[in-house]
Amino acid sequence: MLVVMKMEATPSQVEKVVSKIEGSGLKAHPIPGSQRTAIGITGNLGVVEPAAIESLDGVLEVLQVSHPYKLVSREFKAEDTIVDVGGVPIGGNELVIIAGPCSVESYEQTLGIARQVKAAGAHLLRGGAYKPRTSPYSFQGLGLEALKILERVRAETGLPVVTEALDIDVLDQVAEYSDMVQIGARNMQNYTLLKRAGRCGKPILLKRGMYATLTELLLAAEYILDQGNGQVVLCERGIRTFADHTRNTLDVSLIPAVESISHLPIIADPSHAAGRRDKVLPLSRAAVASGADGLMIEVHDHPEQALSDGLQAMLPDKFGELVREVSVVATAVGRSVASYASPA
Amino acid sequence: MLVVMKMEATPSQVEKVVSKIEGSGLKAHPIPGSQRTAIGITGNLGVVEPAAIESLDGVLEVLQVSHPYKLVSREFKAEDTIVDVGGVPIGGNELVIIAGPCSVESYEQTLGIARQVKAAGAHLLRGGAYKPRTSPYSFQGLGLEALKILERVRAETGLPVVTEALDIDVLDQVAEYSDMVQIGARNMQNYTLLKRAGRCGKPILLKRGMYATLTELLLAAEYILDQGNGQVVLCERGIRTFADHTRNTLDVSLIPAVESISHLPIIADPSHAAGRRDKVLPLSRAAVASGADGLMIEVHDHPEQALSDGLQAMLPDKFGELVREVSVVATAVGRSVASYASPA
Amino acid sequence: MLVVMKMEATPSQVEKVVSKIEGSGLKAHPIPGSQRTAIGITGNLGVVEPAAIESLDGVLEVLQVSHPYKLVSREFKAEDTIVDVGGVPIGGNELVIIAGPCSVESYEQTLGIARQVKAAGAHLLRGGAYKPRTSPYSFQGLGLEALKILERVRAETGLPVVTEALDIDVLDQVAEYSDMVQIGARNMQNYTLLKRAGRCGKPILLKRGMYATLTELLLAAEYILDQGNGQVVLCERGIRTFADHTRNTLDVSLIPAVESISHLPIIADPSHAAGRRDKVLPLSRAAVASGADGLMIEVHDHPEQALSDGLQAMLPDKFGELVREVSVVATAVGRSVASYASPA
Amino acid sequence: MLVVMKMEATPSQVEKVVSKIEGSGLKAHPIPGSQRTAIGITGNLGVVEPAAIESLDGVLEVLQVSHPYKLVSREFKAEDTIVDVGGVPIGGNELVIIAGPCSVESYEQTLGIARQVKAAGAHLLRGGAYKPRTSPYSFQGLGLEALKILERVRAETGLPVVTEALDIDVLDQVAEYSDMVQIGARNMQNYTLLKRAGRCGKPILLKRGMYATLTELLLAAEYILDQGNGQVVLCERGIRTFADHTRNTLDVSLIPAVESISHLPIIADPSHAAGRRDKVLPLSRAAVASGADGLMIEVHDHPEQALSDGLQAMLPDKFGELVREVSVVATAVGRSVASYASPA
Repeated sequence: MLVVMKMEATPSQVEKVVSKIEGSGLKAHPIPGSQRTAIGITGNLGVVEPAAIESLDGVLEVLQVSHPYKLVSREFKAEDTIVDVGGVPIGGNELVIIAGPCSVESYEQTLGIARQVKAAGAHLLRGGAYKPRTSPYSFQGLGLEALKILERVRAETGLPVVTEALDIDVLDQVAEYSDMVQIGARNMQNYTLLKRAGRCGKPILLKRGMYATLTELLLAAEYILDQGNGQVVLCERGIRTFADHTRNTLDVSLIPAVESISHLPIIADPSHAAGRRDKVLPLSRAAVASGADGLMIEVHDHPEQALSDGLQAMLPDKFGELVREVSVVATAVGRSVASYASPA
Repeated sequence: MLVVMKMEATPSQVEKVVSKIEGSGLKAHPIPGSQRTAIGITGNLGVVEPAAIESLDGVLEVLQVSHPYKLVSREFKAEDTIVDVGGVPIGGNELVIIAGPCSVESYEQTLGIARQVKAAGAHLLRGGAYKPRTSPYSFQGLGLEALKILERVRAETGLPVVTEALDIDVLDQVAEYSDMVQIGARNMQNYTLLKRAGRCGKPILLKRGMYATLTELLLAAEYILDQGNGQVVLCERGIRTFADHTRNTLDVSLIPAVESISHLPIIADPSHAAGRRDKVLPLSRAAVASGADGLMIEVHDHPEQALSDGLQAMLPDKFGELVREVSVVATAVGRSVASYASPA
Repeated sequence: MLVVMKMEATPSQVEKVVSKIEGSGLKAHPIPGSQRTAIGITGNLGVVEPAAIESLDGVLEVLQVSHPYKLVSREFKAEDTIVDVGGVPIGGNELVIIAGPCSVESYEQTLGIARQVKAAGAHLLRGGAYKPRTSPYSFQGLGLEALKILERVRAETGLPVVTEALDIDVLDQVAEYSDMVQIGARNMQNYTLLKRAGRCGKPILLKRGMYATLTELLLAAEYILDQGNGQVVLCERGIRTFADHTRNTLDVSLIPAVESISHLPIIADPSHAAGRRDKVLPLSRAAVASGADGLMIEVHDHPEQALSDGLQAMLPDKFGELVREVSVVATAVGRSVASYASPA
Repeated sequence: MLVVMKMEATPSQVEKVVSKIEGSGLKAHPIPGSQRTAIGITGNLGVVEPAAIESLDGVLEVLQVSHPYKLVSREFKAEDTIVDVGGVPIGGNELVIIAGPCSVESYEQTLGIARQVKAAGAHLLRGGAYKPRTSPYSFQGLGLEALKILERVRAETGLPVVTEALDIDVLDQVAEYSDMVQIGARNMQNYTLLKRAGRCGKPILLKRGMYATLTELLLAAEYILDQGNGQVVLCERGIRTFADHTRNTLDVSLIPAVESISHLPIIADPSHAAGRRDKVLPLSRAAVASGADGLMIEVHDHPEQALSDGLQAMLPDKFGELVREVSVVATAVGRSVASYASPA
């Protein structure tokens, strides 16, 4: 931490700040400048609240120098984390494609789409059982029934399943039926849910809140790791900005930023960012080109009948093209799209 | 809803859109223009997903004309809702001041602050029992112990209590011990929590998410009303923008905007928006001037020792000045600050 | 400036950073911490680019501690600046109301509105001669003809005139005909225009860009002061955010923020922020309550025929009410609305 | 346009709106719904201001259905525009790389960097002569001297030159010495400059303002085309958001969005978006993968001595790697990096 004194701060005010710091068992390093004095602080900074110092007379501001996260950082663990989802590794050299409908609507619908996305090259199946919907009057998901459908479809197709746990009530249930539990963007700072996710025994897909900074995303993951679950995959799904040509603005720069400071894998969800299917392909290419470890894509065979988010769902044959296209881009950046889940 | 066709759409594409609409039991109203055709849709729009139409050939876009909320709107209920919190009405002509520490830290601390804010003119006591913290290493609140402290402090001072329910696990507990249950900004779209809040039997203070539009805030409230709880007070607490001179940007324009389309009361929380105590007074004045039904202010007698958010907490005597100042502004806009909870 | 070294930085890397700093004639203050080393820098920081240091091996980041503006700051000049506009002082205890049509459309229209706003209590007349319009097909203003109309209307009514200079081509002309030259939000970082405004001999009304931070606004003003013109009034007119219930989000917190670090006056333009006339009154009250030194309000007697921005223009009688309402709020915050320009 | 009436609007209010519309020579199409009435308007919409209708009694809002731009749209001109910059085409199948220092600092520096970027594969040379700087105390560029340096370097290397015209004062000078005139992000809505750029006889590189919507960017280009200059290349350079891990947020989704509605080429400037050289490569790859027609990259051989923006400048050899890397990505999306300017 660095304390910046006001220009007009008196020597005795500086002295008081130094005493306060040293009284907390820390070390103060005054730096007298030509215009103002700054005071570096070293030691175990956890014991001091910046406010305690910022409220002293003569203090202009207190700057945080070190970052508040630990377990998620590369300084803590240098090598990449590889997360295993039902036998599919995320975070290695091979990219992983997660695909499926926004919502599980029926066994037939889900099985049909699952077979098609598997044939097209997807490695994991997505499908919402519990749906976070802006309006209480929108379709809220089939719940447990959907989880049972996903279980049957996994048995049929061999595709491991990713689905969202909307709250702590259903977290254990979702963890039991699925291979990876998704924490949605609206729940990125639902701390009780994060803590429980840290003890649920399944890998977690943690989506960035549409208003979250990089530090906040990493601290949300830190909650999960702090409970003992290191199997976390981050997901960029678009942030809220003034720009209105896509539903949210896909922030591809987050991908290399995470990569340089965290060992956790990061994938992208271009479907939710775009909000329209015709922008999903270019955003998928961009995400892969910037270093994403995978993609999550909504696919529906009858998007015009979808119970939610039909506008952004791709048709299965378009999705097949997308897998081929992004495979080429993956190769261009020295990686590849994994093939073990390809049709036998 | 209005369907806008592409310039180059053919008559047969227009015809197909009309058939699709009428096949869903709705009425289509084609509007042939000089450049393109638009098609109005009337009837029970709930039965049709815009995506189903937007994916037809020749369609440029589908515009939503009506708003998706109902119970919260003035079109549904014209007169102002007045919410009763342990005998204190929010939403009438008299403004309500909620004050207290960010976190309940001990019985003595809470009682001391409660007595001071009551003496200064506060009507309700705030104090966090369960705290949402960005970092897992920050103080997380005393939980049930804090709720019991609040109960004792209410018995001692007569101030009804507002405190946050962080998740569904503790909602009933919080509802039992408090007079008003707060749903925090990070939980504004925690739908399970909203639904339960709709059945918890206590008034709800619903804070706007720092990324939420007016429509999203109203729909979050709609979740609560839809479960039978009409005792909801909204709260503007700052939105996330690029501006960095305050922690968040207090959007005072939300206050008259809510007032014109909803019957629910709305208060402001300038402490969290400002993030620094020296901006709390001007923002409080601005909120009251723009029509807020009340204020929620953080007060601490030793902010430099506060376990959370010490920087934004006011000292009790400064808070007393604030109440006097905003009372004058309230009068200037034809309202007043309620006095029934003033020291006897 | 503070240099933060990486955790794994070697002593020789620290040594090289110190040498680099001292080689530039500055003083380095190494602060060895338990986890990493930081290095304070003092001296004339203007001689060193942070990049020169940030690119050295072992450096994590370079933090700027001091602010880059000077002439506009209270540290440089403690007392409030009062700007004189044709005899009307802005920045003292009395608030100033600037009102008039968005665009000057004709002599009759302008004179009619000017008389009405003067009767209602306005002190200065606004009216666009050169209009910045998003579309090339929108009305662009009457130009010199409008300036001549404004001159005649001033002669007739005695109201000093504020109007925008869209570019350096017309700046001298605008300065000649008006009492205060407005630099619009879109031109806040048009540096050539700012420099010329600093030499034009007239007071300047500098609007905040809708994307500008406080520091950027102050530095834009610094350009003007640096050329010798200290007669600058700042104006908050709404920033661009995701919120869509007003055209822009009026950031009232800017007003006290400017007040604490700059001696320049600041007014608010609620008409452009709101974009709709029914929100102009509550935003005006909020701006005055938070400490604004004045207001700029669009008024039109036939808003439905206005050539630009008719939606946000108030009718003259509504404007009269607004002046009365904000006068009461001004009194409530210890100020008043100046009366010297009131109807004789 | 579509007029949406309030729920409680009376038949006579609807009637008045219809009369108003038809009185302007347009055609009104009332659509009576179960809850409210809407009224479609067709005809030459230019003659009516939405405000004129929105201010009538009973009207809830007026929705704009058609877009306000024309010359820049694909509906107006279907085939891609190819812009010729000193013999280098932008907008065809081959990508164009523009590279060079942020500022022209001397003949030797510029020539040295130009030779290196040419050898590495750049097709055009960038270099600032007139620099827009946030602070008046930062280096402002060498001006005319820099233009003469660029001219000599072009003669020496054969690289056509792109440089910014900061204002109308220097536009003709810049147009005379350069092959392409850049309009910077801060000037995107400097309409006088845009109009002059439309008559300057040189191709224009128009950067998106960091706050600009897609529609505003296209309308800024429309200003240039409207004056007869169709040689416009757009440039995405990052928008301002709350995200703080890069200086601005590169909005790659703008690229396919422009492509679908406009015939103009669009390139990306990842250097300014990133603000740090280590993020320039992944953002370059992302931009190319999403369909950009080229890249603009800052390169400096001694970034630690650069007079501006040294942090984001790449070293020449790293730039060489970047060109090779993005060439592979270009191939992966069915395009290539042009080679005619490669080292002979």
